[in-house]
Amino acid sequence: MSLVDGVPVDCLSVRDRGLAYGDGVFRTLRVRGGQPLWWQDHYAKLEHDAVALNLPCPQATVLQDEIERLAAGQDGVAKLILTRGCGPRGYAPPPQPQVTRLVTFDPWPADSVGQCVADISVRWCDLRLGRQPRLAGIKHLNRLENVLARAEWQDPAIREGLLCDDTNAVISGVTSNLFIVSEGVLQTPDLSQCGVAGVARSRILRAARERGIDAEVARILPDTVMHADEVMLCNSVQGIWRVATLEDKNWSPGGWSETLNGWLYEVD
Amino acid sequence: MSLVDGVPVDCLSVRDRGLAYGDGVFRTLRVRGGQPLWWQDHYAKLEHDAVALNLPCPQATVLQDEIERLAAGQDGVAKLILTRGCGPRGYAPPPQPQVTRLVTFDPWPADSVGQCVADISVRWCDLRLGRQPRLAGIKHLNRLENVLARAEWQDPAIREGLLCDDTNAVISGVTSNLFIVSEGVLQTPDLSQCGVAGVARSRILRAARERGIDAEVARILPDTVMHADEVMLCNSVQGIWRVATLEDKNWSPGGWSETLNGWLYEVD
Repeated sequence: MSLVDGVPVDCLSVRDRGLAYGDGVFRTLRVRGGQPLWWQDHYAKLEHDAVALNLPCPQATVLQDEIERLAAGQDGVAKLILTRGCGPRGYAPPPQPQVTRLVTFDPWPADSVGQCVADISVRWCDLRLGRQPRLAGIKHLNRLENVLARAEWQDPAIREGLLCDDTNAVISGVTSNLFIVSEGVLQTPDLSQCGVAGVARSRILRAARERGIDAEVARILPDTVMHADEVMLCNSVQGIWRVATLEDKNWSPGGWSETLNGWLYEVD
Repeated sequence: MSLVDGVPVDCLSVRDRGLAYGDGVFRTLRVRGGQPLWWQDHYAKLEHDAVALNLPCPQATVLQDEIERLAAGQDGVAKLILTRGCGPRGYAPPPQPQVTRLVTFDPWPADSVGQCVADISVRWCDLRLGRQPRLAGIKHLNRLENVLARAEWQDPAIREGLLCDDTNAVISGVTSNLFIVSEGVLQTPDLSQCGVAGVARSRILRAARERGIDAEVARILPDTVMHADEVMLCNSVQGIWRVATLEDKNWSPGGWSETLNGWLYEVD
């Protein structure tokens, strides 16, 4: 089920710059009972990312209506893509781009992900993220690094891979943001050079701030992760994952993952 | 005019991984009298790039036939895109991908680009290319850096921008590869960290080798370019550009650009 510029079709122009250059941004988000979850945050992030690429962003109500039209009261996952639309051949952005607005929806059993924390096994990826401050943090359509990293393993028991940049700083999971508790302090990687600053991460940082809890955005090395008291991953679709196993290291259940999960759903 | 998997349509699935992640590779090439120019080189490069991303590559004859079908004897520019096709949600590549094969063709006046060298004005871009050795050299669909760099200027008198990486090495133009003549030696940037190793560049390197002429693949700094005897840019659509002006520096016509242009069209 999909809408392209509000029209129920399942294809888009072969000349779209989203295909040609990955010239666009996207969001993946949960839908509950037909309503997009954490919509204000998702729209704010979409708009922020669009501005960063100098893309006009459609109004929030237009996008929300389209998600609700496709979801028709169901639970599921919606994906929004904004591209710079079609244009003549060449990288030069058209001066007055007609953005393409694509909304897709996949129904998903409500109980497949709940509000509880899942324990997962994780690995280190070999791929090192390149650093590009002009694109860092943005959820844009240039995601080949994620594809290559995710292709590093087939074992279904491994739910996620951890990525470092080429300076050996830990950045994120392939599909998730990272939080650790190290010497009692909640930390998440600095994303000024690469990675995606996701909505779940920003909700957790905001919740910590609102509660007067110290949450550091820091340069984190692999060794610090291996020796952390607790390691957690988050994204808007899965919520909080507690890392139970990372290579040969195991963590027993702790308290922060439940706390962060609570924050994720409680924060405004 | 376009063919998607051989079918004359002008749209492709909203679920295509080419759109979702830029998960694919492409070629842009000249067509003369309905025939793709330098086809063996273009196909070899397409296949090389597909292998680098673990994408099955269609047979050369299939693609060549489709270009010829669209071109119908005309001059113009063809673009080939291969993507990893559709798949379920998520970065994990499908184990048996059904690649999407997209061919488009735009007629172009035969005399708009000939076999003669054009003199152009060039600028330095502010954007610094990120380094990612796993993707370096490949003409993949993640081209936001090129889009951002090309958006840095609107002046139609400036035909191309030069790009450095974040170590200050000169890499290429936004849409072209670079050659300089410095202290009498032909040089082109090393592309092991970023950039696209284009077909025109490889034809020139091969021609030099066949003629016993020293052509160095080197780390080149901006200062070396500014003090070069001659600066040239090349790509498969435009052929050779001689840089006449770069910021406040001017070069008077020299001999190498005509030589390189000759090689481009003479080499097998």
